[in-house]
Amino acid sequence: MPRGIPVTVPDDGLTTRQRRNAPVLAVHTGPGKGKSTAAFGMALRAWNQGFDIGVFQFVKSAKWKVGEEAAFRALGRLHEETGEGGAVEWHKMGEGWSWSRKAGTEDDHAAAAAEGWNEIARRIEQERHRFYVLDEFTYPLKWGWVDVADVVRVLSERPGKQHVVVTGRDAPPELLEVADLVTEMTKIKHPMDAGRKGQRGIEW
Amino acid sequence: MPRGIPVTVPDDGLTTRQRRNAPVLAVHTGPGKGKSTAAFGMALRAWNQGFDIGVFQFVKSAKWKVGEEAAFRALGRLHEETGEGGAVEWHKMGEGWSWSRKAGTEDDHAAAAAEGWNEIARRIEQERHRFYVLDEFTYPLKWGWVDVADVVRVLSERPGKQHVVVTGRDAPPELLEVADLVTEMTKIKHPMDAGRKGQRGIEW
Repeated sequence: MPRGIPVTVPDDGLTTRQRRNAPVLAVHTGPGKGKSTAAFGMALRAWNQGFDIGVFQFVKSAKWKVGEEAAFRALGRLHEETGEGGAVEWHKMGEGWSWSRKAGTEDDHAAAAAEGWNEIARRIEQERHRFYVLDEFTYPLKWGWVDVADVVRVLSERPGKQHVVVTGRDAPPELLEVADLVTEMTKIKHPMDAGRKGQRGIEW
Repeated sequence: MPRGIPVTVPDDGLTTRQRRNAPVLAVHTGPGKGKSTAAFGMALRAWNQGFDIGVFQFVKSAKWKVGEEAAFRALGRLHEETGEGGAVEWHKMGEGWSWSRKAGTEDDHAAAAAEGWNEIARRIEQERHRFYVLDEFTYPLKWGWVDVADVVRVLSERPGKQHVVVTGRDAPPELLEVADLVTEMTKIKHPMDAGRKGQRGIEW
């Protein structure tokens, strides 16, 4: 467990308080489970601090992560009704981005991914959210649908105190370079190796 | 992302459905971040499925994970009020277990840890919860406060459909042996290395 004691104190001219409050860019990568789940676990903390949360899922499947989505939508409703915690917006590429009127974007994943990123970049510029989950965002980067250099620039130059968590395998080195927190999840053992299929309450 | 297709089909005499519904024992270990956060992310899915959730935290600090606790307590209240999701119980060793009347257990961590495990073992026998998070439970195992062989026996022989997630560094090999899902979190880069301290909404 972290004890709050930095290993080294950098010569960056910042006070401890400034450093403490520096917004975090985190990347969860590697072939193991838990990349997205850990991101949503972090979002629970953000919610409890009253942070405005924006989740952007760059996946096609509607089935997976329905549990996290339902729980966060419930937390978002609780915020609207009682003021507890923070606001929650949950956007999915799979069904066409909610802000988009384009029909048939689901037929063109590359265009949909680029549109999603452009919207996120706009929101970051406007400081629309305080905590962003860019779920499985490494894949459009890997497939060349979204420009890595543009992402690195927008994320590393983002204004204010916006925290960003990016999840997915094979995160590009340029992104890891500018990230503050990089965790690799490694699969040691998985039930599917033993012939099990995914099950409700565990995989979704 | 898992596609639901097992790599191998074992010769265990079970149907795919039986295997699919086999309760999961998961262990999140390794030196990186995300072990507990991923467990709480899994618990979000369990909550959404209406599973009764029991969280048992084997840590002393009250500060860390207060965000997850607040969010899950909110989800538990939502369940009580609207029937949505599942029930949530959250127990902490740090403040003395809520079910315990013993004064001063906080002075004897070994006894408190053993008491916590004994209660969990009773609940598992009674099938009290459907989804257990044994947070940072590897430490009392490591320090010899709780008997590893007893834990392995109770967990591997647990009745019904109870899912269990154990988190913490240095999980004992005997536990990994009986686990269905083992993920190791590896630290690649951490803001505290760069002289930052923990901050609200991120570390708690």
